Amino acid sequence: MTLPARLTGVIPPVCTPLTPDHEVDTASLVRLVDHLIDGGVSGLFVLGSTSEVAYLPDGHRKVVLDTVVGHVAGRLPVLAGVIDTATLRVIDHVRTAVAAGVDGIVVTAPFYTRTHPAEIDKHFRLVAAAAGLPVFAYDLPVSVHSKLGADLVLQFAADGVLAGLKDSSGDEAGLRNVILGARDRGDITNFSILTGSELTVDNALRMGADGVVPGLGNVDPHGYVNLVNHATTGNWDDARTEQERLIRLFDLIRVGDPTRMGVSSSALGAFKAALHLRGIIETATMAPPQIPLNPDEIAQVEKHLVTANLL
Amino acid sequence: MTLPARLTGVIPPVCTPLTPDHEVDTASLVRLVDHLIDGGVSGLFVLGSTSEVAYLPDGHRKVVLDTVVGHVAGRLPVLAGVIDTATLRVIDHVRTAVAAGVDGIVVTAPFYTRTHPAEIDKHFRLVAAAAGLPVFAYDLPVSVHSKLGADLVLQFAADGVLAGLKDSSGDEAGLRNVILGARDRGDITNFSILTGSELTVDNALRMGADGVVPGLGNVDPHGYVNLVNHATTGNWDDARTEQERLIRLFDLIRVGDPTRMGVSSSALGAFKAALHLRGIIETATMAPPQIPLNPDEIAQVEKHLVTANLL
Amino acid sequence: MTLPARLTGVIPPVCTPLTPDHEVDTASLVRLVDHLIDGGVSGLFVLGSTSEVAYLPDGHRKVVLDTVVGHVAGRLPVLAGVIDTATLRVIDHVRTAVAAGVDGIVVTAPFYTRTHPAEIDKHFRLVAAAAGLPVFAYDLPVSVHSKLGADLVLQFAADGVLAGLKDSSGDEAGLRNVILGARDRGDITNFSILTGSELTVDNALRMGADGVVPGLGNVDPHGYVNLVNHATTGNWDDARTEQERLIRLFDLIRVGDPTRMGVSSSALGAFKAALHLRGIIETATMAPPQIPLNPDEIAQVEKHLVTANLL
Amino acid sequence: MTLPARLTGVIPPVCTPLTPDHEVDTASLVRLVDHLIDGGVSGLFVLGSTSEVAYLPDGHRKVVLDTVVGHVAGRLPVLAGVIDTATLRVIDHVRTAVAAGVDGIVVTAPFYTRTHPAEIDKHFRLVAAAAGLPVFAYDLPVSVHSKLGADLVLQFAADGVLAGLKDSSGDEAGLRNVILGARDRGDITNFSILTGSELTVDNALRMGADGVVPGLGNVDPHGYVNLVNHATTGNWDDARTEQERLIRLFDLIRVGDPTRMGVSSSALGAFKAALHLRGIIETATMAPPQIPLNPDEIAQVEKHLVTANLL
Repeated sequence: MTLPARLTGVIPPVCTPLTPDHEVDTASLVRLVDHLIDGGVSGLFVLGSTSEVAYLPDGHRKVVLDTVVGHVAGRLPVLAGVIDTATLRVIDHVRTAVAAGVDGIVVTAPFYTRTHPAEIDKHFRLVAAAAGLPVFAYDLPVSVHSKLGADLVLQFAADGVLAGLKDSSGDEAGLRNVILGARDRGDITNFSILTGSELTVDNALRMGADGVVPGLGNVDPHGYVNLVNHATTGNWDDARTEQERLIRLFDLIRVGDPTRMGVSSSALGAFKAALHLRGIIETATMAPPQIPLNPDEIAQVEKHLVTANLL
Repeated sequence: MTLPARLTGVIPPVCTPLTPDHEVDTASLVRLVDHLIDGGVSGLFVLGSTSEVAYLPDGHRKVVLDTVVGHVAGRLPVLAGVIDTATLRVIDHVRTAVAAGVDGIVVTAPFYTRTHPAEIDKHFRLVAAAAGLPVFAYDLPVSVHSKLGADLVLQFAADGVLAGLKDSSGDEAGLRNVILGARDRGDITNFSILTGSELTVDNALRMGADGVVPGLGNVDPHGYVNLVNHATTGNWDDARTEQERLIRLFDLIRVGDPTRMGVSSSALGAFKAALHLRGIIETATMAPPQIPLNPDEIAQVEKHLVTANLL
Repeated sequence: MTLPARLTGVIPPVCTPLTPDHEVDTASLVRLVDHLIDGGVSGLFVLGSTSEVAYLPDGHRKVVLDTVVGHVAGRLPVLAGVIDTATLRVIDHVRTAVAAGVDGIVVTAPFYTRTHPAEIDKHFRLVAAAAGLPVFAYDLPVSVHSKLGADLVLQFAADGVLAGLKDSSGDEAGLRNVILGARDRGDITNFSILTGSELTVDNALRMGADGVVPGLGNVDPHGYVNLVNHATTGNWDDARTEQERLIRLFDLIRVGDPTRMGVSSSALGAFKAALHLRGIIETATMAPPQIPLNPDEIAQVEKHLVTANLL
Repeated sequence: MTLPARLTGVIPPVCTPLTPDHEVDTASLVRLVDHLIDGGVSGLFVLGSTSEVAYLPDGHRKVVLDTVVGHVAGRLPVLAGVIDTATLRVIDHVRTAVAAGVDGIVVTAPFYTRTHPAEIDKHFRLVAAAAGLPVFAYDLPVSVHSKLGADLVLQFAADGVLAGLKDSSGDEAGLRNVILGARDRGDITNFSILTGSELTVDNALRMGADGVVPGLGNVDPHGYVNLVNHATTGNWDDARTEQERLIRLFDLIRVGDPTRMGVSSSALGAFKAALHLRGIIETATMAPPQIPLNPDEIAQVEKHLVTANLL
């Protein structure tokens, strides 16, 4: 399908269910996609950070692309992360994603390499030229260790290099500079601004963001769709109430013992445990070297779901 | 070939010559390998940071492995970097490297992901179990954004997880803690400690390091081999004099205008320009999005080479 | 005066006017205070980062305290920053501030020192015990290089260690966790949550923050007071419009040439140039080693003021 | 006294003994100074990081200066740290130190503030102009969060701004660039280069550093003096053996439980516990908010001292 000129609503970063021996569990993945579509999402983002993309070999990535694009069959747009260290490696992922039939790609600045602003500029322009379909910049300084400035993003938008931004920087002032700049400059049209900050979605939408890419949306897509619907219809107080409920639910990412595992294992482990407890995926297996939650920690996830009326 | 129990001497990280359209220039790569072997190096490290590994697609990486392993034909050990974000991706590279016939692999901690010490531990153990040949840890905090502690490295050595360490952290005190720990603990044998800090090689060798992996060794392998030979025969003052000459030569990495490019483009650009000027590689092409040196900057590289009697 | 149980509205961090020879320009400071009070602010925060506190010797700091407390004479609350590296030094500043008659103090975690969470906890408890008046935590990771977690702040609130938080971290999700936690926990009353993020004030107020500490409020206090008044009366669309006007005005902090000066010199230089152009302070002098704006840069500040109808 | 043109040997950063109620314990301080002089040190550095300078109020700092300068009475040079956030505050400390009669001052770049290279340049020039006595730059990125580049330091040396460098960056390659630059440039004389890296002193001296400022030198000044003497007389193998003994002793800084305290509390606590156990200072009290070692941890310090024949 063709992407809409402005991508709006909830576009969750789709978790990647795995079998106990760390292969992609395609049956669970299909159920997860159905769960999200039933929840009312307006698009899917596969192979993002919440999808454990950095942990998945190319073979796994291809299975995810083929499974999701095939199952969705054009019912809603599919964006794909093409996450890798530098330009030529990213372009390889772009080719695979394009061949699989995705509707847009999501690209970070180079990482691991020490990269100058002029090189970040060149990177996005080369990837966009090779892609031939809409490109979204993925701003994730916690992983990439550089921040995409508002001026750079806006220039990319004006030059047609980018179709949108997925901002997971947590920098709301910077996000607002992009939103306001895109509105105030006369040379930008059809630029979609998505926030990845799942605890401030109502704020982002009030500021003028188009949509949201919430990791927690795997667990409770209906909640985020409600939130966006309230916002779209101007019921901002209801949007806030729903957001606050989701913030309390989000606490489940903290169940993992910080002496045994990192925040990433804890958060992804909790999302997957919740999806397992809700009967959507077969196991909560994560790709190595992530550390699995133990039964006590999973019991805490269960409590969060009960409190949120999700079990 | 089998790796020696202790890897010593100069094991340069081999630059990856590219054609103007960014394919691996295998003819130049073979000439570069010959240049290094003629220089007296004791091993080769392909697909490290100086090899632009983070910029090279898997196809390029395979060509490099096949070309170098094939051309070397067992005359000296070949180590291969298997640089990628997390365990399963790294293991894919390990399989390719093992199939190509390398003698050891060089592995970083996960990056892009936010990784807990327990996850770093698990990562190295899983990669080593999958490799079935000697594994060297690659400590490069400037790229990986975490530091491998001496205790962790020593435990890996004692447990047979690691055959050695390539320390590019620049933390000489930390390196010394590994060297002294490996000597003082009773449970570590045959652990090779290599420094990637090309300006303090004499220090590292005096402290007890086994060998050196100098990026600048591409340009002047004879210099680094001289340095190591002086050290091995106890001529420490001559070793220092040679080291100081190489430090002055190393200034060539600063020819690139910092308003146009990053330190990485400047350094790799200067190494490749020097190899081109010395007639070893066909062009100084770097993988995108790196920024090439301009003629004025290349002329400065030339001056450095003349001063060092390398032209 | 006694602080209200909840501090609300606009509490600007008061710039510190200096004479050309870097003494405190008390006449200008008094005019600035009048300008702010005329603008409708509900309190004053002296000796914060925008006040150049880190650049001011103790003598200067005392002059500021005495001048402002004396001139305000209890008409509105005065908070004072007691910014220094560690506990005993901070307590010295607390004593001076208490003696001068301030109504509350604003304290960061230790900096320069490498500080453990247990030490941060101990620091705030010792400072609060020594202060004997309301203590606000100042969360400013860009300067302090550590972040105050929501759990720590909330525990301080419950224990009566803190009367409030001034959050200049830019982390809106973290701020929201504090706001929601203070509401959801049963053990916290009279805790004032202030945002220092001047571009997202409407968001912060909608989330439940009590007030705002905007550096730009020196230049346009009426604007921030309007914004808060719109929010208080539920006119959120007008609040947003006013916020967006202030965001455009805030662009004046970028007039400084980044090859000549840092962002701090540029921002403070622009604030002071604006106050000078508006006839409020005598000169735009900044404390060394900050770099002054040049006439071209000041002319750009003037344009911003004209556009904003402030000249 | 006048500083020698080149400051050489061991110049320990003198710990600041405190009474149980956190006042300077001048009797213990005098005993510590005697212990260091007896150990053969060639100068004293008071009010450095190891002296807990960032924890000490101005009153304490003045007591330290007066006590040490008075007791030393010109027998050897005394350098004083003038550690504070920015220029005018540093100059206040300079005045106090000059009045107390120190022989040189030790200055960092600004911290807490976000400082541009042009501002760092201006800062050192203004402080030096105000000081009227030899100024040493103190490069301590772990605290200051910026690194002094070799080019900047060398230009300061050539311009007479600096009399020397105390390099605690741990960046041996950077240190070597300063050493070699000072030798190769024709415009630098009488510039003293001191390393604060206590585990690589033999390396630093071999590279051409003039002296060493070792925190561990409080505990074992004789050891560091032996090390330097071996180096000075060309007995480099003996220097290394002594250095390795001191590295093993240095392990005492790790006795503190990392779940209870930071590395700074652990290291300073261990130094002070060792000085107490050796009968030199009255108590191991540290300034708040540092966390004291517990009896078990102190017992481990004791074992280290016994192993090192220091008890």
